[in-house]
Amino acid sequence: MVHVTVWNEFRHEQESELVRKVYPAGIHGQLAVFLEKAGFHTKTATLDQPEHGLTEAVLSETDVLIWWGHMAHGEVADEIVERVKHHVLRGMGLVVLHSGHMSKIFMSLMGTSCDLKWREADEKERIFVVDPSHEIASGIPEAFELEKEEMYGEYFDVPAPDETIFLSWFEGGNVFRSGLTYRRGNGRIFYFQPGHESYPTYYNENVQKVIINGVNWCSKGNRAYPTYGHEEAVYPIGKGTNEQ
Amino acid sequence: MVHVTVWNEFRHEQESELVRKVYPAGIHGQLAVFLEKAGFHTKTATLDQPEHGLTEAVLSETDVLIWWGHMAHGEVADEIVERVKHHVLRGMGLVVLHSGHMSKIFMSLMGTSCDLKWREADEKERIFVVDPSHEIASGIPEAFELEKEEMYGEYFDVPAPDETIFLSWFEGGNVFRSGLTYRRGNGRIFYFQPGHESYPTYYNENVQKVIINGVNWCSKGNRAYPTYGHEEAVYPIGKGTNEQ
Amino acid sequence: MVHVTVWNEFRHEQESELVRKVYPAGIHGQLAVFLEKAGFHTKTATLDQPEHGLTEAVLSETDVLIWWGHMAHGEVADEIVERVKHHVLRGMGLVVLHSGHMSKIFMSLMGTSCDLKWREADEKERIFVVDPSHEIASGIPEAFELEKEEMYGEYFDVPAPDETIFLSWFEGGNVFRSGLTYRRGNGRIFYFQPGHESYPTYYNENVQKVIINGVNWCSKGNRAYPTYGHEEAVYPIGKGTNEQ
Amino acid sequence: MVHVTVWNEFRHEQESELVRKVYPAGIHGQLAVFLEKAGFHTKTATLDQPEHGLTEAVLSETDVLIWWGHMAHGEVADEIVERVKHHVLRGMGLVVLHSGHMSKIFMSLMGTSCDLKWREADEKERIFVVDPSHEIASGIPEAFELEKEEMYGEYFDVPAPDETIFLSWFEGGNVFRSGLTYRRGNGRIFYFQPGHESYPTYYNENVQKVIINGVNWCSKGNRAYPTYGHEEAVYPIGKGTNEQ
Repeated sequence: MVHVTVWNEFRHEQESELVRKVYPAGIHGQLAVFLEKAGFHTKTATLDQPEHGLTEAVLSETDVLIWWGHMAHGEVADEIVERVKHHVLRGMGLVVLHSGHMSKIFMSLMGTSCDLKWREADEKERIFVVDPSHEIASGIPEAFELEKEEMYGEYFDVPAPDETIFLSWFEGGNVFRSGLTYRRGNGRIFYFQPGHESYPTYYNENVQKVIINGVNWCSKGNRAYPTYGHEEAVYPIGKGTNEQ
Repeated sequence: MVHVTVWNEFRHEQESELVRKVYPAGIHGQLAVFLEKAGFHTKTATLDQPEHGLTEAVLSETDVLIWWGHMAHGEVADEIVERVKHHVLRGMGLVVLHSGHMSKIFMSLMGTSCDLKWREADEKERIFVVDPSHEIASGIPEAFELEKEEMYGEYFDVPAPDETIFLSWFEGGNVFRSGLTYRRGNGRIFYFQPGHESYPTYYNENVQKVIINGVNWCSKGNRAYPTYGHEEAVYPIGKGTNEQ
Repeated sequence: MVHVTVWNEFRHEQESELVRKVYPAGIHGQLAVFLEKAGFHTKTATLDQPEHGLTEAVLSETDVLIWWGHMAHGEVADEIVERVKHHVLRGMGLVVLHSGHMSKIFMSLMGTSCDLKWREADEKERIFVVDPSHEIASGIPEAFELEKEEMYGEYFDVPAPDETIFLSWFEGGNVFRSGLTYRRGNGRIFYFQPGHESYPTYYNENVQKVIINGVNWCSKGNRAYPTYGHEEAVYPIGKGTNEQ
Repeated sequence: MVHVTVWNEFRHEQESELVRKVYPAGIHGQLAVFLEKAGFHTKTATLDQPEHGLTEAVLSETDVLIWWGHMAHGEVADEIVERVKHHVLRGMGLVVLHSGHMSKIFMSLMGTSCDLKWREADEKERIFVVDPSHEIASGIPEAFELEKEEMYGEYFDVPAPDETIFLSWFEGGNVFRSGLTYRRGNGRIFYFQPGHESYPTYYNENVQKVIINGVNWCSKGNRAYPTYGHEEAVYPIGKGTNEQ
C-alpha cells in the first residue's frame, strides 16, 4: 500500500474567506479525501506544525510527498528542505502542485529559477495529453477543460523535462507545459500546474485522476540507493593491449 | 558556405490562383529568396522534375535540404525517399516545414504516423520559445504572432523530440509543439509547423529567422560516418578477474 | 493478466547443433519458460509458421511482443512488419532482444540504420544500471556480469533513447548502451542487448528479471488511440485582441 | 570573440611536487595555453584570489567559465556560487571538468548528489563518441584512448543528460557517461570527465579538442533573459465557446 503525505502551507485558507469557502478543510484536506478514496494510505502535514510536520519519522514512512505552497515559501526551514531532498534522492516520490513551482524544494531539485508568467483572470484552461502511453495520462481524455484557472505561461524556467505529459492552452493567449516528470537520484518527481487556491480545481475528476496517477507513478522510485566512492578493479590492470 | 536545396512539391501554386497570388514564384521561390539573402548557396528542386530534382549529384552537394509537400506525398518515389534518407543518416541536414509532417521522408525517419489535428479557419497563432538558449531561437522574441495560420493541434504523433524549441497557441483552442529537433544517424532534423500555402507566412520576418537558424543548426551534422561491423578486441580477453 | 507473444526466427537452433544444445526448445522456448513462470500468459510464434505466426488475431490478443531474430531478417514479410508496427503504434508493447536490433520492425520504428560494432570472442560483459529509479531496473544489482557474450559496441546508430537504463562494459575494450526505451505512438519499446544464440544468457537470473521487468513496463502502453484530422474550433475565432 | 575564464582551485599543484611536475603553471595555466591558441580570449582565476577571482566584473565579461576543483570544494564561498549560478542561468556557459562534478556550483545546478565511483590505479580509459552529429564531437575519432586516468564509474548521480556525447570504458571493469550536456535557464553546461591532476591529460590533443568544442558550444547560450511575472491577456477572456 502506497503511503502518501499531503503537505500544504495552509495559509490562504486561514487568511481568506473566499479560499476557505472553496476548501473548508484546507487544500490538503480535499487532496486527502480523494487520495484516501483511491486507496492510498494518506496523511497530511502543514507549515505551522513542528518541523512543518515533516519529521524524519514521517518522511521515512512516506512513499510519495505532495507539495502545495505559495505565499510562505520563504518560511520553510532550509533544514527541512534538505531533509526532504535527502529522501527524494533516496527514492521518495514528490508531486509538486501549482504554485509549488517556486518552493525551495522544487527549485533546489531543478537547479533553475522555476519562474514563469502568470495571470489571475478567471480564464479557461484546456489541458492536452502529449504522451498518450504514459501511466500518468492513463484514463485521461485527449483534452479536458477547467472552467477557471490561474494562467501559468511560458517561458517556464525549468530543465528540459524527462517527460512532457500535458500541455495547456489558456484563453487569454498563453501556453504552458503543465505536466512534467523528472528523475533525481532514486526519486521520481511530477509537476502538475492546475490548482489555484480560489478555484475548485481539486474537485475536478480529471485533475484528481491525474494526481492519483502521478502518485502511483512517483511511488515506484527505488529505495536501494547506489553505493559511491572507492571501488577496487574487477579486472586486472596493466596487461597491455592487443594492438601492435 | 552552406549549400541549401529547397524542395517543394509545387502543385498548390499551379492549381490554385489564390496560392499563386501569395507565392507567385512558388513556395520554394520565396524560401529561396530569403535564404539566398541570408548568405546560403541556395538551389531549388520540385516534384515534377526528373528524379524530383533530387539526384545523387544534387544531394551530395547539399548541406541542408528543406522539404515542403502536402497534396502529393504519395507521388514521391520510394527510391528517392531512400536516397534522401541515406544522405540524412550520413549528415545532411533536413528542415521539414508545415504539411511535410506527413511526407514519406519524415515518416520514415520518425517511425510513427506523424498524424495530428488540423483546421483551416484563418485563425491566429502565437509561437512561444521554450528553449531560450537554443541557436534556433536566437534573435526570436519570447513570443510572436501569425495573423492567420492553419491550426495544427495535439496529439502530434511523433517520437519525443530531442529538443522542443517552440510551442504554439491557436485562437480556436489548441496547442502544438511547433518547433522540434531530432538527430538521426549523423543528420540533424528540424520540424517547423508554420507555412500553410494560402497564407503569406514565409514573408514573416520571425518565421524567416527561425528557418535561417534552423538551416544553420542542421548544417552542422557530421559527414564522418561511423564504421560498423566486426571489430577486433583492443584488450586481451580471458585474463581472468581480480575477484576471489 | 499480461499476454505475451514470444517471436523467434528459430533458424540457428535448427541449423546448429551447438545452439540446439544451449536452447533445445528454441530461444523462444526458453524465454517462454521463465515468462510463464513469472505469471504472464505466454505464447510463441516463429518465422516459418504461416504469416510468421503473427496473424491479426494473435497480435490483437498480444499485450507485449518479444522479438528475437538474426540470420533471416530479410525473410520477414513487409506486410507482417507493417501489421506489427500498426499494433505497436496503437499500444502493443515490443521487447527487442539482441540481434533484433537490425530486424525490419525495429529499424522501421527507429528510422535509423540501427547498425553497431560486434565481436564473437567469448568475452565478459558487465551490465550497469544508470537509471536506478526505473521499473526495468527494479531488483537488479548496480552491476552484474555475463561470463560470455557477443560484444556489441558503440556507435550504435539509434535515435537518442527516451531512457537509457543499462550500459555495458566488454572485456575487449568496448562499451554499449545495452538497455534502452522508446515510445512510439501509443506503444512502448524496450531494447535489451544480451542474448547471443550460442551462450546460455537467457538462463541468467538477472537477464530474466530484466526481461520480465521490460515486459511489465511495455505492457502499460495505452490502447486508446488518439483521434486525428479535422477539428472544429472550440473557441470563437476573430474576436480581436486586447492589444491596442 | 569568445571570452573564457578558466577557474582552478590551484591547491594540488602547490601541495604536491608530483602534480607540479605535470602542471608547472597550474592546471589553469595549461588549459589557458591551448584555449588561447584556439583563438579564445582567455583569463584565469583561482580559489585564493579575492572573491576567488570571480567578481561581478569578471563574470560579466565571461562567455564561458571553466571549472576545475577537487580538494577544496567546501572553501568556495556560497555567495560566489550564487553569483556564478546567476550568470549561468542568464546565459554564461559552464564547462565542468573531472572532479568538478562535486563542486558546489555543479551540484546546485544539477539538484542531485553528483556522486560516483572512483579508483586511482593508472588505468586505461577509452572514450567513445555516442552522438556523432554533435558539435562537441566534431573532429573527434569514434574512440580514443588515455593511457592513464582516474576511473570514474557508474552510477553517476546526475539528472538524465540533455545529450550524452561520450561514454568511457575503463580497464578495471567500469563504464562512465563521460561527456554530458545540460541547459539550465539560458545557460549551457558541459561536463567532461578526464583530467585527474596527476596525469598529463590536458596535453592530450583529443581532450583539448573536446574542451575547445565544449567552450564553443557553451558560448552560444542566450543573454536575452526571459521576462517573468504578471502578464495581461492578449486575447479577450469570457467570450464563451463554440460548443453547444
